[in-house]
Amino acid sequence: MFKSFICLGLAGAASLAAVGIEGTSAQAQPAVMAETISVSEVKGAQEAWCDALVSISKAHDQGGIAKSKSLAGDVIDAAYGYQFGPVAFKPTWAKGDTTFRETREGAVSYFVGDDPAYADQGYAIGSPGINRSPWVKCVPEIFVIQQFGKTANAMGWVHVEAADGTKSKVEKTFGYMRDDDGTLRIVVHHSSTPFAGF
Amino acid sequence: MFKSFICLGLAGAASLAAVGIEGTSAQAQPAVMAETISVSEVKGAQEAWCDALVSISKAHDQGGIAKSKSLAGDVIDAAYGYQFGPVAFKPTWAKGDTTFRETREGAVSYFVGDDPAYADQGYAIGSPGINRSPWVKCVPEIFVIQQFGKTANAMGWVHVEAADGTKSKVEKTFGYMRDDDGTLRIVVHHSSTPFAGF
Amino acid sequence: MFKSFICLGLAGAASLAAVGIEGTSAQAQPAVMAETISVSEVKGAQEAWCDALVSISKAHDQGGIAKSKSLAGDVIDAAYGYQFGPVAFKPTWAKGDTTFRETREGAVSYFVGDDPAYADQGYAIGSPGINRSPWVKCVPEIFVIQQFGKTANAMGWVHVEAADGTKSKVEKTFGYMRDDDGTLRIVVHHSSTPFAGF
Amino acid sequence: MFKSFICLGLAGAASLAAVGIEGTSAQAQPAVMAETISVSEVKGAQEAWCDALVSISKAHDQGGIAKSKSLAGDVIDAAYGYQFGPVAFKPTWAKGDTTFRETREGAVSYFVGDDPAYADQGYAIGSPGINRSPWVKCVPEIFVIQQFGKTANAMGWVHVEAADGTKSKVEKTFGYMRDDDGTLRIVVHHSSTPFAGF
Repeated sequence: MFKSFICLGLAGAASLAAVGIEGTSAQAQPAVMAETISVSEVKGAQEAWCDALVSISKAHDQGGIAKSKSLAGDVIDAAYGYQFGPVAFKPTWAKGDTTFRETREGAVSYFVGDDPAYADQGYAIGSPGINRSPWVKCVPEIFVIQQFGKTANAMGWVHVEAADGTKSKVEKTFGYMRDDDGTLRIVVHHSSTPFAGF
Repeated sequence: MFKSFICLGLAGAASLAAVGIEGTSAQAQPAVMAETISVSEVKGAQEAWCDALVSISKAHDQGGIAKSKSLAGDVIDAAYGYQFGPVAFKPTWAKGDTTFRETREGAVSYFVGDDPAYADQGYAIGSPGINRSPWVKCVPEIFVIQQFGKTANAMGWVHVEAADGTKSKVEKTFGYMRDDDGTLRIVVHHSSTPFAGF
Repeated sequence: MFKSFICLGLAGAASLAAVGIEGTSAQAQPAVMAETISVSEVKGAQEAWCDALVSISKAHDQGGIAKSKSLAGDVIDAAYGYQFGPVAFKPTWAKGDTTFRETREGAVSYFVGDDPAYADQGYAIGSPGINRSPWVKCVPEIFVIQQFGKTANAMGWVHVEAADGTKSKVEKTFGYMRDDDGTLRIVVHHSSTPFAGF
Repeated sequence: MFKSFICLGLAGAASLAAVGIEGTSAQAQPAVMAETISVSEVKGAQEAWCDALVSISKAHDQGGIAKSKSLAGDVIDAAYGYQFGPVAFKPTWAKGDTTFRETREGAVSYFVGDDPAYADQGYAIGSPGINRSPWVKCVPEIFVIQQFGKTANAMGWVHVEAADGTKSKVEKTFGYMRDDDGTLRIVVHHSSTPFAGF
C-alpha cells in the first residue's frame, strides 16, 4: 500500500507538558538511526548511474581503453555491491554462457570490453554496431519504486543518446542495498531491449 | 547516520523534457510500494499503546475482569505480533520462570491477571500494590528511534499516572514489524523500572 | 508462516551447567521468530511459478479463455504481491506504453490476453506467434540468489517447452517478499528474451 | 561477510536433465548473497559480549582504568553500531538524565566510569557496590531470537559471577545489525535487573 513520508515535527515533550506529567525535555525529540532508502535516494542513484555511463564514454573518447577501463572499474567499485557477494547483473547485450555477470570482472568486461574471457564490445563506451559512437546523454524514467528498508528496487526505462544522434532506450530493473557509508549499491541490474513485436 | 525524509517531487518526465530525449509521460512519476516504517508511525504506535493501557484500566473500572480481559485480548491481537512467532516481551513486573512472555497467554495474563499459570496482579488494570488505582494518563517520551524498513525500534520512557495521582515512569524498548495490512505490530517489548541507585 | 524452531549449535542450558552458574532449563532453547527467506524457499517459489504457467496453459487447452483467465487471476492473487502496491513487472513480450505491468489487471492480461486495454496474445496460454501451442514443461535454472530477510531476489533462466516441441528460454529476475501467512510473493519480475547478437 | 554458498534441496541442473530440456550446467548451482543473520550468529554475538565483559574486568584488575578504558573503547567500536547513528542502549544501572546512552561516550562511561559527565561506577570492571569484584564468568541464556534479515533480536538473561563468588543475572534485549564486513553490531541493548516482587 502507498504510505506517506511526512514526518510529524514534534515529540513527546509538548504532549508531556500538555498532560502535566513531566516538564519538557531537550532530549524528547528522538535521535533517529535511519537505514531506510528514500525515493529521492533511488532517483539519485539512477541519475548517478547515467552520469557514470556518459563519463565512461567520454573517457574512452579521450583516453581510449586504458582510461575508460580504469574509470569503469572505479564506477563498479563505487556503485555496485560485488563486495557483498554475487550481483544479479543481466546486461542488455550479454548472451550465452556469459549472460549473467555475477562477478566484478564480468561487469568490467561488459562496460568496456577488452577481456578475452567475454565477447563484449563494451557497452559503456558507445552505441553497439560497427560505427561506435559515445553516449552523450542518459536519462532514467522510473515507473515503479519499492522501498523495503536497507534495500529498494526500481523499474523503468533508461533513455540514451549517442554522439551521432542515435536515440534508444532499455528496460531496467535495479535493486539497491545501502552500505555502511550510506551509499546505495546496485545488487540487482537486469537490462533488456524493448520487444519489437512478432 | 541521520538521513532526511524529504521526498523530492521531481518527476523523470521533467528531466526528460529538459534534455529533449523524450516527451513527458503521465507514468513518469513512479508508483511507490513503501514498506518502510516512518518516524511518525512509530510515534503513533506508542501513543496507541498508551491509549490502550488507559482503555483497559477504564474497562476494568467499569466492567471488572470480564470486560478488561476481553479488551486486553483484543488489544494484544491488534497491536502485538504473536501470530508471527514468539514475541520478545519482558514486562515490568514479571519475574522468575515467567519473566519472559513469548506467548499470547502470557501477555494477556500480565495485562489483566486472572491466570493461575502466572502470578500476575494485572499491570494494565491499575497501579501495583494493595490499593490498585486505574491508569488515567499515559504518555510516551521517545529518545531513540531506529528505522530498518519493515521493522523499527524505539527506546524511551512511558510516563503513567493513576487515578489516585500516583505518577511513575518505566523504561521501554519497543520493536515493531509492519504487517500485510500496514499495521505496526509489537515484536519486542522490554519494560523496566528506573534504577534507584545503590 | 514459515518458522524454524531448530536451533543448531550450543544451547544456553548446557553452557550454564558447564560453568556451574545455573541449572539447566527447559526454556534455555530459544524460541525463534524466523522471517528470513531461505534458498530452498526461493527455489520452491520458482518451481511453483513454472507449475502455474503449465497449469494455465492446460486450463486454456481444456476450458478456453474462461477457465484460463479465472485460473490466471487466482495464480496472480496467490503468488504476486499486488496487494502491497505496484509490482515491478516487465513481461517478456510487453511493449510500448504497456511495457510495465504495475497493476493486477495488466498482469492478468499479459498471462491470458482478452483485455482491450492491452494488446496481449496471452503469454501463459501458449507459445507466441500464429500457431499457439500450450506450454507443457517449465524449468527454472537459477544463477544468483540474494537473501535480505523478508525479501529475496533470484536471477536466471526459465526453460519452457510447448506441446509442439518448441523449446526456448527467457531471462528472469524475480524479487520476493514474505507475506503474513509465510508465503513468498513476487514483487519484482523482469523477463526478457536472450540477446541474439548484432 | 558471512555468506553461505551451500544450497540445500534440488539443483536446477538435475531437474533440467530430468525433464530433458537442457543439459546439466556447472553454473546451475546458484551463487548466493546471504545477508540474513542466523541463529548461531546471534548466539555467537552474545557469547562474544560476555567474553568482552570478562576481558574488561580482567584488564582493569591488571592495568587499572587506563587499560580497561582503552579496551572498553575497542570493544564498543568493534561490537556496537554507534557509527550508524544513535544506539538504543539502556544500561542496567544507569539512571535519571543519563538513563539512555545513545552515544559512544555514554557507553564507554557506563562500562568503565571515569567520565565526569556521567555518574558511573563502571559496570564492566566489576560487581557494583563498595567492594568491587571483577567479573570472572558471564553466560547468556537466550529465550527468544527473532530473525528479520540484516537485523535480528534476542531476549533473555545474562548470568554473571564475580571473583568474590557473587552471582547475579540481568534481563537483556539485544538488537543486531550486520555491517558490511559481516559482523553483527549491537544497535539495541536494554538491560534491567530482575523484579524482586512487591
